[in-house]
Formats: sequence, structure tokens, C-alpha cells
Amino acid sequence: MGAAMARRLAGQGFPITALYDAHHERAAALAAELGAQACETLAAVTGAAEVIFTVVTDDAAQLAIFAETGDSLLIGARGKTFINCATISPATHLELERRAAKAGAQSLEACLASSIPQALAGTLYLMCGGMREVFDGAQDLLIPLSDEGKLLRYIGGAGQAAQVKALVNMVMNINTAGLAEGLGLAAALGLDLKTVMDVFSQTGAASRVLTTDGADMVNRDHACFFSAAHAAKDSGIALKLAQEKGLHLPLAAATRAQYDKMIAAGLGELDKSGVAELTFPGRGPK
Amino acid sequence: MGAAMARRLAGQGFPITALYDAHHERAAALAAELGAQACETLAAVTGAAEVIFTVVTDDAAQLAIFAETGDSLLIGARGKTFINCATISPATHLELERRAAKAGAQSLEACLASSIPQALAGTLYLMCGGMREVFDGAQDLLIPLSDEGKLLRYIGGAGQAAQVKALVNMVMNINTAGLAEGLGLAAALGLDLKTVMDVFSQTGAASRVLTTDGADMVNRDHACFFSAAHAAKDSGIALKLAQEKGLHLPLAAATRAQYDKMIAAGLGELDKSGVAELTFPGRGPK
Repeated sequence: MGAAMARRLAGQGFPITALYDAHHERAAALAAELGAQACETLAAVTGAAEVIFTVVTDDAAQLAIFAETGDSLLIGARGKTFINCATISPATHLELERRAAKAGAQSLEACLASSIPQALAGTLYLMCGGMREVFDGAQDLLIPLSDEGKLLRYIGGAGQAAQVKALVNMVMNINTAGLAEGLGLAAALGLDLKTVMDVFSQTGAASRVLTTDGADMVNRDHACFFSAAHAAKDSGIALKLAQEKGLHLPLAAATRAQYDKMIAAGLGELDKSGVAELTFPGRGPK
Repeated sequence: MGAAMARRLAGQGFPITALYDAHHERAAALAAELGAQACETLAAVTGAAEVIFTVVTDDAAQLAIFAETGDSLLIGARGKTFINCATISPATHLELERRAAKAGAQSLEACLASSIPQALAGTLYLMCGGMREVFDGAQDLLIPLSDEGKLLRYIGGAGQAAQVKALVNMVMNINTAGLAEGLGLAAALGLDLKTVMDVFSQTGAASRVLTTDGADMVNRDHACFFSAAHAAKDSGIALKLAQEKGLHLPLAAATRAQYDKMIAAGLGELDKSGVAELTFPGRGPK
């Protein structure tokens, strides 16, 4: 994802000065392509750039590159801006903002609700969290990534974009698991599934996941765009937030249980549409 | 609903010859308006019309007007066509078809997925079940009711349209209860709900119920279009079908439990959007 965003920004005329990857050869290959420097240390990246995008896998990796001791993006960070695109917990975004401020730098959360093809095309759905002036100051770089800004949203303070992303995925997962039940029962009743999906699309049963996942559920095409394991994780983040707020969310809980059941059955790496393997007659584990 | 459909067909130039209502004065008033005869018996309706639309409240009422003894639409029914629009169980549609055939008549299931304003405007979403030739033979009357046929669907044999309607409502109810959880958690987190709904509408969380019910959930505007009690009933019909087929549908079950909870709390006559009263912080029963 980071490489795709760098290619997009380079293609739009922005100078990419420095690249870093835990696997140095990856950074070196892309650096050669984009005329950038492949850095051996995190501190060198900060030294060579004004604005630093970070895309890592999880909270631990995110906190590690912003370490308060040893090699770190925070070294020499005064006056620099960090834009952090990983899907991580809201609390980590708050911690990054705190550490950046301590180093005299600014940080912005830029949560991605899209994937690599959208990054290359500059049509990422970008939800941003942090101080408004940091968001405003980063417009020049964010707009070319988000369909000329049409897909760019300022959500609120640091961590709030991650909260909204968790909500989006929680609701999406519920709609997906519910659709799998509707189509599974339609199949059990011997109904024509093309007709049923047509009716769903024109009535109160219509949803985005009907468009993206309905046919895949019927055809058992579960090549992965967003894995069942990922769905379980994101629903889990939302349920943890709900628990902290004392809210009881039975649909979200039932959905997470379905995705946990997929993981337990060895189906965790299927696409989220694979939840249909639990609801169609004659399929999947009992 | 029956009156609205009669007005629409009269407005399109079809002669409405006979009307019947359990409350005779209602039939009399509409008959005066449309130049029809208000019948005192069911048999008189069949005697005066070629095609008879029926719209009743439940299975018992539907079977009563097609009684095999006493006053009944089946008296003198040879060669007539019945179009039955009530939301009733699939099994009752099969029984009606059997009784009609025994009387030398034809019957068609015409399940409505819309309400009175659509009936008056002739834009009903009509899902039909029964013999294909009966459906084809009723086109002249069905097309002016369904946006020139654009909203007219032949689903399959008698009872199958009722099955699809149960599925539509089951999935709609799941999406509604799930949306209420997403917005309730967003409220608990102090997020801007207008922004959250905007993001939902542009991502995998998008659904028809977001458009129809999202703002109502936020604004606690639960004036009834489709009641929580009705939602519980329809999810229950679908769950019964699932049980007969040996399918386990945890989302549908959790949704029904939410609507049952509303009924138990005296909120059954709120609109289905009222399920948000169970999920927003500081609202509703514990």
C-alpha cells in the first residue's frame, strides 16, 4: 500500500525523497524506480523529508517506528508532519500525536477505506483524524490521493477516524453475515437466487455488500479481498469499544461469532463472503 | 390498501364492478365514489366480477373468504381469477390455489413490497407467485399497478413470492438492527453522527435502511411505517422456514430477539427504526 501511494504521488509530480521498509531490498527497488533514497534508518527518512507517510501492519509496528529511544522517525522531527495510514487502534493514534508533539512535530491519522488499486489510481477513501490545522496543512498531498478530494473526509480528533472505520466494518460485517443468511435460506427453499438478489436490490434488503458479495456467496467465489479473520478482528475492535461504553450489541456479537467460527473451521483466510459457507444448505462445517 | 388499489385501477379506466368489506359502510362509501356495487355477500362479489383482488390481514381471514362451506368467494367461481395481495404464509397461498382449482377458478399470489402511497400512484413493487399462465393472463391489471410493469416480478409457484417477501424483510430487519448498533456506538463515542452516516453511505456499510431509517434513528422519529411488531413477526416467519430446512441463522435470531424485546418493553408499535432505542446510550429499556 505504501509503495502504491508513493507511485501515485510521484506520478502527480511530488518529489519522493526517501523510502524505508523493514525489508531493505523492497525500499531499494522502489527508490530506484522513483529516483528516491532508500534509507537504512528511520531517522534518515525524517531527515530527508518534510512530510512522512507511514503504512505499517499493526499497533506494535506503528509504535516501534515512533519509538522514544533508539532509531525512530522522531529523531530530528521538529517541524515535520507525519501522516499515518495503518489500521490501528484509536488509542495508538492518540499516543502518536502525543509523541510527535513532544518532538515538535505534527501527526495526522489518515485511515484508508480502500485498497491498492485505488491507491494507484488516486481514488482512496481517506478518513482523517487529528488537529484541524494539520489536516488543512496536508491538503496538497491528500487531495491527489482521494479523487481530487471528493473522497477526503475530516472526521475529528486523533483516533476518531479509526473509530469510524471500526464502525464501518462492524456494520458491513453484520450486513454481510445477514445477507449470507437470506441467500442461504433462499437456496434451501429452492428459490431462483438471481431473482432473489434482483428483488433484494430493489427493496429494503438492498445494501452495498449485496452488490459486492452476493454473487460471490452464490458462486462460492471467496478469493480474498477482506478476509474473514480481518472481519472478526474489526468487529472485535468495535465490540471492545462498545463494552467500554457499556453498550450491548447483539448483532455485532453474533456476527463476530460467525467469523470466529470460520477461523475455528480453518476458513479464516477466505474472503468475508465466505460466511455463506456457514449458512447455505449442504456447505461448510456443522 | 384494497381501496387504494381500486382507486388506482378505476383511475386507469378499469370498471370496478363490486366491492366488499367486513365493515359494509366502508365498501358502500367507496362504491359510491367509484360507481360500483357494495356487496352484502362474498358470493355476490364473485358473481359481479371477472377478476377479484383480495387484501386481508392474515391467514385466518384469507382462508375465511375462501371458505369451502357457507358464504365464500368460491361460490360461482368457475372461470374467475383471484389475485391475493395479503402478506400471509406460503402454505396458505398453496391452499388457496388448491381450493380455487377445485372450484374451476384460478388464483395468483401478488405480494406487495410497498404501501398505500405507491398503490395510489400505481407504483407498487409486486412479486407474484402461481402458475405462469395465470400471471401472464393478469398482466393487463398488474401493469398499471406496478409502474407500467417495471416493478412487476414473477417469482415462481404459489407461495414462493411470500417466501421471498419473508426473506426481504428478514434481511431488512437484520440491516436495520445492525445499523442501530453502529449509530448507537457512534453516539456513545461522541462522534458526529451526520459525518458517520455520510461515511457509511459511501463505504461497505451502505444500505437501503441507512437511507430510510438512519436519520430517524438519530432523531428518535419512530412514527410507524413498518412496526417493530411486524418486523418481529416477519423475521419469525423466516426463522420458521429456516428451522424446517435445518438451517441455523444467528443474525436473524438476534434480530428477532431485539424486536421481541421492543414488544416486551411496550415499544412494539414504534417503527422498526425504533430498535435504536435499544442501542443508543441513555435511551430505552435496560
